[in-house]
Amino acid sequence: MAVVARLDGTQLKDTTNALDNLRDLCAADMARVNQLIVDHMQSNVPLIPELASHLVAAGGKRLRPLLTLASARLCGYEGDKHIGLAAAVEFIHTATLLHDDVVDESDLRRGRDTANAVWGNKASVLVGDFLFSRSFRLMVESESLKVLDILASASAVIAEGEVAQLTTANDTATTEEDYLYVIRSKTAALFAAACQVGGHIARRSADDEDALGQYGANLGIAFQLVDDYLDYSATDKAFGKGVGDDFREGKITLPIVLAMRRGDDDERAFWRRTLEKMDQQNGDLEHAGELLAAHDALADTLIRARGYADTARTALAGLPDNPHRAALENVVDFCVERAY
Amino acid sequence: MAVVARLDGTQLKDTTNALDNLRDLCAADMARVNQLIVDHMQSNVPLIPELASHLVAAGGKRLRPLLTLASARLCGYEGDKHIGLAAAVEFIHTATLLHDDVVDESDLRRGRDTANAVWGNKASVLVGDFLFSRSFRLMVESESLKVLDILASASAVIAEGEVAQLTTANDTATTEEDYLYVIRSKTAALFAAACQVGGHIARRSADDEDALGQYGANLGIAFQLVDDYLDYSATDKAFGKGVGDDFREGKITLPIVLAMRRGDDDERAFWRRTLEKMDQQNGDLEHAGELLAAHDALADTLIRARGYADTARTALAGLPDNPHRAALENVVDFCVERAY
Repeated sequence: MAVVARLDGTQLKDTTNALDNLRDLCAADMARVNQLIVDHMQSNVPLIPELASHLVAAGGKRLRPLLTLASARLCGYEGDKHIGLAAAVEFIHTATLLHDDVVDESDLRRGRDTANAVWGNKASVLVGDFLFSRSFRLMVESESLKVLDILASASAVIAEGEVAQLTTANDTATTEEDYLYVIRSKTAALFAAACQVGGHIARRSADDEDALGQYGANLGIAFQLVDDYLDYSATDKAFGKGVGDDFREGKITLPIVLAMRRGDDDERAFWRRTLEKMDQQNGDLEHAGELLAAHDALADTLIRARGYADTARTALAGLPDNPHRAALENVVDFCVERAY
Repeated sequence: MAVVARLDGTQLKDTTNALDNLRDLCAADMARVNQLIVDHMQSNVPLIPELASHLVAAGGKRLRPLLTLASARLCGYEGDKHIGLAAAVEFIHTATLLHDDVVDESDLRRGRDTANAVWGNKASVLVGDFLFSRSFRLMVESESLKVLDILASASAVIAEGEVAQLTTANDTATTEEDYLYVIRSKTAALFAAACQVGGHIARRSADDEDALGQYGANLGIAFQLVDDYLDYSATDKAFGKGVGDDFREGKITLPIVLAMRRGDDDERAFWRRTLEKMDQQNGDLEHAGELLAAHDALADTLIRARGYADTARTALAGLPDNPHRAALENVVDFCVERAY
């Protein structure tokens, strides 16, 4: 792996390569997953593949299906079932994205180039349902009720997390615990399930399967923490998100929770006005950034992320030491180091 | 069963009793289904049971789970699995209703007292996803991959039908075949699956399972035809729908397809203005009713419904002749006779 110099003089792994390593190792499997994804989003109703391909075929990191493939291979799996399960995991993720982009009635001003902006809310919802149903058909082909249980449970938990996020939005009384519940559910549950099913089909011990689930869960938390950090710090659109989206939507992420708790009365009034009453003016996002910096809210969010990342890496310790394990360890670096 | 006189002097079965018969026969099972439904919509996130109960606990006919229960019992099933599957079927139906009520961006003027009007689009979508995921967990408990395949396939077909309906809306070139595709998919597929899984868990022959599926599919088509008939003819809100909803939404249902095909140029221009361009004025709904009457469009829609109803009844002929079969035959009467 390449090493690049950081501005502060320390050395940093090249994080582009960190994910490329996993991609290269799983390239042949992933080509089959991509074909299966294209096959299973076909329908007699032309709008379905048209809308689905907007998200699915457009690419993206495909991180979650890569986790399923690598987890299975790490465990020495030689069969075919990891292909269908990886596609199923990607379909669940895509359905979630489609549904996440549905615009609320009270919330129509922010038009973005999401699927719902192009085809309308209703089409996004229904095509999401289609992909979600197709993901279950793909799972049935694994012929494992346990796999279905793991992924159906994860899907329910994702929905719970998304609803919880809806109820914490615009609520500056949200605690760090509330926030953690949301990201464990909406993000980490699918990361965990994606890894666990890979271990399960390889018929590893329950301990090993559990270790893979722990790896995925902690990786997912770290991933989401960095995402929420980036929303206040990324300087470009490399990750597909604009700086300040969370602020403009009144989302209560960890940086806000920390700054709110650590601030004085004036500062709390500022957060309430901008994120609760949604009364935002020119200069507010910049002032938010100053408050986050003053209270180390972004730096401490990253420290939390590093903690979970380390837990993820440690969870793999008892598993076979092979190139797939090394690649999964590199994914941890990718998830955290993209913050820099 | 009670018999009541019709206005034209012929005798008609009392359709309230037609469904009561099935309800009475399945009362003990249905009480367990209702308990399971309440149990499985619980969540740490309070908004979920709150919103779900708006639809689920509010009642409704519970026709689909009743079909699963009666199909299993008709086949002599003595186990417990029909309870969970009936709850799963109702959850799929409820999730579909929640997603069906999502209001499109372009479509915000018609405010109704649906879940989305009270809690917003996004909550409706996410709670629908939650119920959908929970339905799959309930299915996993049946320990039958075939059952999962039947219901996952039906779910995908429902979504396809709903998307197809979206693309036929406001399109007066919609053919009878297009319309049939939509209602087979969005309505009949779940009726068919609900019956088929009941037969499957009872381990009947493939022929018997298929017969139950055929019964459900044809019953579902008849049911939807009558629903679309009622939208232009019901004189009260007994069925929860106001007269003219489909017209106001520009939905192209069979009565419209027939009247459009049978009308002259002026009439077709009327349908295009009102349903395609959505330029509707006072008196248009009344004029639509006159055109439908002039071309026997409503009467012929009912004749089609009677045909499918008869096919449904006939499909049961090879199955054991017992009270559950008689109750399912009565359901056919209920679905059609509610038109009168």
